[in-house]
Amino acid sequence: MIVLHHLEHSRSQRIAWLLEELGLPYEIKRYKRNPKTMLAPPELRAVHPLGKAPIVEEDGRVLIESGAIIDELITRYGADSGLRPAEGTPDHLRYSTFLHFAEGSQMPPLLLRLVFSRIVEMSPALLRPLTKAIAAPVNKGFIAPNIKSQLDFLNGELSARPWFAGDAFSGADIQMSFPMEMAQQRGGLDQRWPKLVGFLDAIRARPAYVRAKAKIGA
Amino acid sequence: MIVLHHLEHSRSQRIAWLLEELGLPYEIKRYKRNPKTMLAPPELRAVHPLGKAPIVEEDGRVLIESGAIIDELITRYGADSGLRPAEGTPDHLRYSTFLHFAEGSQMPPLLLRLVFSRIVEMSPALLRPLTKAIAAPVNKGFIAPNIKSQLDFLNGELSARPWFAGDAFSGADIQMSFPMEMAQQRGGLDQRWPKLVGFLDAIRARPAYVRAKAKIGA
Repeated sequence: MIVLHHLEHSRSQRIAWLLEELGLPYEIKRYKRNPKTMLAPPELRAVHPLGKAPIVEEDGRVLIESGAIIDELITRYGADSGLRPAEGTPDHLRYSTFLHFAEGSQMPPLLLRLVFSRIVEMSPALLRPLTKAIAAPVNKGFIAPNIKSQLDFLNGELSARPWFAGDAFSGADIQMSFPMEMAQQRGGLDQRWPKLVGFLDAIRARPAYVRAKAKIGA
Repeated sequence: MIVLHHLEHSRSQRIAWLLEELGLPYEIKRYKRNPKTMLAPPELRAVHPLGKAPIVEEDGRVLIESGAIIDELITRYGADSGLRPAEGTPDHLRYSTFLHFAEGSQMPPLLLRLVFSRIVEMSPALLRPLTKAIAAPVNKGFIAPNIKSQLDFLNGELSARPWFAGDAFSGADIQMSFPMEMAQQRGGLDQRWPKLVGFLDAIRARPAYVRAKAKIGA
């Protein structure tokens, strides 16, 4: 039996969705964030020393790191799913590139934006103009231009083909869903990038995505 | 001919090293950082719209994202190199996991530390106590514990086996070299994690690493 250790509102949503796409049976173990720090609870460390979600247990193995989990589960259980393009093809290179791009390139500026927003929100009212003044140049000089150039690039990619790897939906689209949803919540993603909004509409219409959302709650 | 677009002091060092390990001929095109912002120069955008290094051009293709580049180059040119463990093995799963872990998990807290250090360093002397007071709780609550738990985990991994994927040196070690060197420069990595210091010593002793360093300069 596959066990998905799921932290609320986290990257582990993607893995529930993948398991639904693959039609695999799985059990969900749920964890709540610390309401003050928003961090994962220490119980996750009993499953893997890093104590982060997602963690997948299957067949005596403990899998971490979303991109590696997605690639491993598709390779092992989804050979006929079409979710992993054949090696040596341009689609496979894009699949691999976007599996890495999601967390390696797209998430860091979104994480920085989240951290600086929290600092401003949580600072005492009297200090807020100052924390805003400190956050502003980082946002202007680094975060905002990076997010914009990434959205421009990604919108161009989805103008050239319907899904990130090519003509067919793949594991790369599942991996890209998290930074894309975060870009919509925190990164200003809107109709200026119509292909990306269309991507979010398209994934949210997939039955497996809807089933995963219903099962995990949040 | 393979062309490596190399930005000084950047992740593209890894790709020069990989190309030396594979014994492939390649041409280096060099780019300097903006001395004020430390960002990549706009010329890189002519090669790929994201304008980041590394970028590899080969056989009419433009490759981005270190983890994807490493996996693609080894698959294509290094079938007999031993740098990519056979699929379906525990070593391959670790190879894939650490290819993703380096940028997806290990770099984000190191990037946050870099950003907050810069904010403190660059703030006017009068404001410095205040910027330090803003950086301190982020460091204490998020950055420092994350870096420590990652180093503990990684040191444990290299206690169980000599290289990140298993008994043999692989592309995962090349990918992990950048966050590990950054952890030594900025993350407090020292003899408290002896296996990780030993890893850095071991990679720096590899002839291909030395050749790459000599060729690229910085």
